[in-house]
Amino acid sequence: MITVSILGNGNVAHHLTTAFLNSEKVVVKQVYARDIDKIDYLKDRVSITNTIELLEEADVYIIAVSDNAIEKVSSKIKTKNGLVVHTSGSFPLHKLNTTNTKGVFYLLQSFSKTKPVNFDEIPFCLEAENEKDLQLLENLANTIGKKVYRINSKQRQHLHVAAVFVNNFVNHLYAIGNDICEAYNVPFEILQPLIKETALKLKELSPKEAQTGPAKRNDTNTIENHLHLLNPKQQEIYQLITKSIQDG
Amino acid sequence: MITVSILGNGNVAHHLTTAFLNSEKVVVKQVYARDIDKIDYLKDRVSITNTIELLEEADVYIIAVSDNAIEKVSSKIKTKNGLVVHTSGSFPLHKLNTTNTKGVFYLLQSFSKTKPVNFDEIPFCLEAENEKDLQLLENLANTIGKKVYRINSKQRQHLHVAAVFVNNFVNHLYAIGNDICEAYNVPFEILQPLIKETALKLKELSPKEAQTGPAKRNDTNTIENHLHLLNPKQQEIYQLITKSIQDG
Repeated sequence: MITVSILGNGNVAHHLTTAFLNSEKVVVKQVYARDIDKIDYLKDRVSITNTIELLEEADVYIIAVSDNAIEKVSSKIKTKNGLVVHTSGSFPLHKLNTTNTKGVFYLLQSFSKTKPVNFDEIPFCLEAENEKDLQLLENLANTIGKKVYRINSKQRQHLHVAAVFVNNFVNHLYAIGNDICEAYNVPFEILQPLIKETALKLKELSPKEAQTGPAKRNDTNTIENHLHLLNPKQQEIYQLITKSIQDG
Repeated sequence: MITVSILGNGNVAHHLTTAFLNSEKVVVKQVYARDIDKIDYLKDRVSITNTIELLEEADVYIIAVSDNAIEKVSSKIKTKNGLVVHTSGSFPLHKLNTTNTKGVFYLLQSFSKTKPVNFDEIPFCLEAENEKDLQLLENLANTIGKKVYRINSKQRQHLHVAAVFVNNFVNHLYAIGNDICEAYNVPFEILQPLIKETALKLKELSPKEAQTGPAKRNDTNTIENHLHLLNPKQQEIYQLITKSIQDG
């Protein structure tokens, strides 16, 4: 049995707490939030607190707060033992401000509070200072998930920027597609099967193998025609990505 | 019963021919390809030819060839009647070179020859010169599909450029994510659940509502950190899309 306490009241804290409460292999000892009203809904299932200094001993403390609060929150944990981990994609392990051992428990997915999470599908990116702690985090991840990876701080920060490209930036290209459709009274839903297929194709092909389109086949006529249809901001993005595809 | 003949041997021609051959409401009269060997596999199921001028009368002729061959192919159809349509996203209806009536039968999806196609999921974008022909194309599309739209040439050319953003350009961002992972020995599969979630989220949220990330929340620290991790080409794309997100 692994004992954990969770610090935070955001989406990651919420979903982790719920998942661990439903696991028979984990005991959630306490949940902390600065504003205790925000975790009031948990009080019938677990001990809640708004005072970090009063946290009891546990095997793992999971700090799931915004990046700029991690250091401060970690410095207030006053227990003798227990592995202190954060859940951030970009925060370095060594900046955790604690004399306890340190680790990272990063879930690479975008969460929203209202949508249920299938943890079987979510990659757990784990880091610790020694093998024993790493194995503890792997055991903990395996109680609720299936995709467990050892990722060091350098790998994690690059993974995080890669995630910005394939999630935030991709979504912005969807937004441009949506804008173009709206301007000509075309329902955006027409593009959705193509969007889905483009994403799911990666199960079979690498992105390089899957690349098609006028830039890839150097179809300058079509590229010229497309540029005439776009506004200056869209043109700039069209030209830069076209050039990037052509440069290989 | 609708009679159709299909001209071409690419992916679209192949999948349309197969689907219509399996429909009880359509008779495929003939399939044409310049190189008849390429459609030899169809000869037990349908009449094949390499001579357009010998095509017999049919209700609809579907020209599924590359854009630069559409005009020439259309000019060789010598039947008295029959609606002549092409399947291109960017070719204007009026450039079909025929005295027959004209139309467009554009399937908005990216096809590969080896992968089976679920036509229920594919948007049919239809255009014709008159209501009767449009209804004929709708009836034809409904024999194999479910998502049928009336899209005029102006809408279609904008839809096509929107598709370049959400398919070709999105795929290139996947490729950049892949490059970053490879450079740091991180398996690209870690990003795939996020990629899938980003695409599927559009069922519930508009792209604007779904936008998250450092650009959206104007997190200049994280943006600066990310830029240091990228090569100059990646930086240029990162900066331009970040700016575009911030400009709303």
